[in-house]
Amino acid sequence: MPAPQVLAFDIFGTVVDWHGSIAREVAELYPEVDANAFALAWRAGYQPAMQRVRSGELGWTRIDELHRLILDGILPHFGLEHLREAERAHLNRAWHRLDPWPDTVAALIRLKAKFTICTLSNGNIGLLTNMAKRAGLPWDCILSAEVFRAYKPDPRAYLGVAQTFDLAAEQVVLVAAHQDDLAAARACGSQTAYIERPLEFGVAQPKDVSPDPANTWHARDLLQLASQLGC
Amino acid sequence: MPAPQVLAFDIFGTVVDWHGSIAREVAELYPEVDANAFALAWRAGYQPAMQRVRSGELGWTRIDELHRLILDGILPHFGLEHLREAERAHLNRAWHRLDPWPDTVAALIRLKAKFTICTLSNGNIGLLTNMAKRAGLPWDCILSAEVFRAYKPDPRAYLGVAQTFDLAAEQVVLVAAHQDDLAAARACGSQTAYIERPLEFGVAQPKDVSPDPANTWHARDLLQLASQLGC
Repeated sequence: MPAPQVLAFDIFGTVVDWHGSIAREVAELYPEVDANAFALAWRAGYQPAMQRVRSGELGWTRIDELHRLILDGILPHFGLEHLREAERAHLNRAWHRLDPWPDTVAALIRLKAKFTICTLSNGNIGLLTNMAKRAGLPWDCILSAEVFRAYKPDPRAYLGVAQTFDLAAEQVVLVAAHQDDLAAARACGSQTAYIERPLEFGVAQPKDVSPDPANTWHARDLLQLASQLGC
Repeated sequence: MPAPQVLAFDIFGTVVDWHGSIAREVAELYPEVDANAFALAWRAGYQPAMQRVRSGELGWTRIDELHRLILDGILPHFGLEHLREAERAHLNRAWHRLDPWPDTVAALIRLKAKFTICTLSNGNIGLLTNMAKRAGLPWDCILSAEVFRAYKPDPRAYLGVAQTFDLAAEQVVLVAAHQDDLAAARACGSQTAYIERPLEFGVAQPKDVSPDPANTWHARDLLQLASQLGC
């Protein structure tokens, strides 16, 4: 395998803690709501919503709009159907305010010294930019399904990173906490790094983080990945 | 006018010194060539090449490929028709290695503390990312004609910035050293900041940098713009 040139990072769950961040905002704004269940319900609508775009049922629709569709659907189940437009819009932007995992920022700074580091998220460009600015994520470039008009695991997203930088697919590493995302990147020829995030779904639902030998790297967190990559 | 939220920067000539950088590389690699004339000839092909894309004569083509088309066309005029593929490819990447003007990096750091700062260049994403990494340009986000599949002054490029960040056009400021670029942004509703770059075309061809009162700001350089914007 050639030396990697670009590291492309999945974001939700890999770089930032969506479950903890959403649950904390909900608990603060609406203390009567089961914040853990709310975060899980919101996220549960994510793949089905993107599938409506992938299948062509919906034209190209950004994650901000998909998050809002899902939110409007779950509010009645949590006794929040009375929320007004401004409250719904504010809550929907919680996805722009997700907190990084504790190792993220220090690791990205180390990795950036040796590699080009970019996002490859299904999140939209504005969301990813606002998140990076608030959390101090030092991306060299923000790439998104929005740039390629194709949601992962569509091959156009993974191949788009290599084409953006005039590289062969194997000079790109996808870094993610999700084996299905990594498998799709590997099918496009990229190298892959799995990051354990056992608490992605909260402490009540620990995640299986078993290694898959098909990945090029397997790391406990991004700091360990930096060490594995010689940074 | 509302307070600006996002500053979108033109790059070639505004943020980096394309003429000086190209001329320096050419002078070093090919000392027998008139480097000033070479830089001007290469850049002279830029607008006509983009016009072939805007008119539909060419399908979507990135600036890297357009720069190469122009390069191949001018090499014989400078006695360099013997250059081989690797030499042409290396020279073409000189546009990824452009040096910033002396005020650029310090000013962007100040502006970034108060605003979201992004590129809005006809240069492709990979070129802009490589340039930023080499020169230390601290963009929050790299936007490009490549994202919107429309070369400035196509309105889709300017409106695309506002849409990316869910803003009204007047909450975006285009920062550029070119009055035609600024006029097109203004026609889309954006605020505008003109930056004097009298030596954009080299010391032998000083540029008219007269103020146009239609611009919201007029600054000698980016440090003066930062002061005008309270940074």
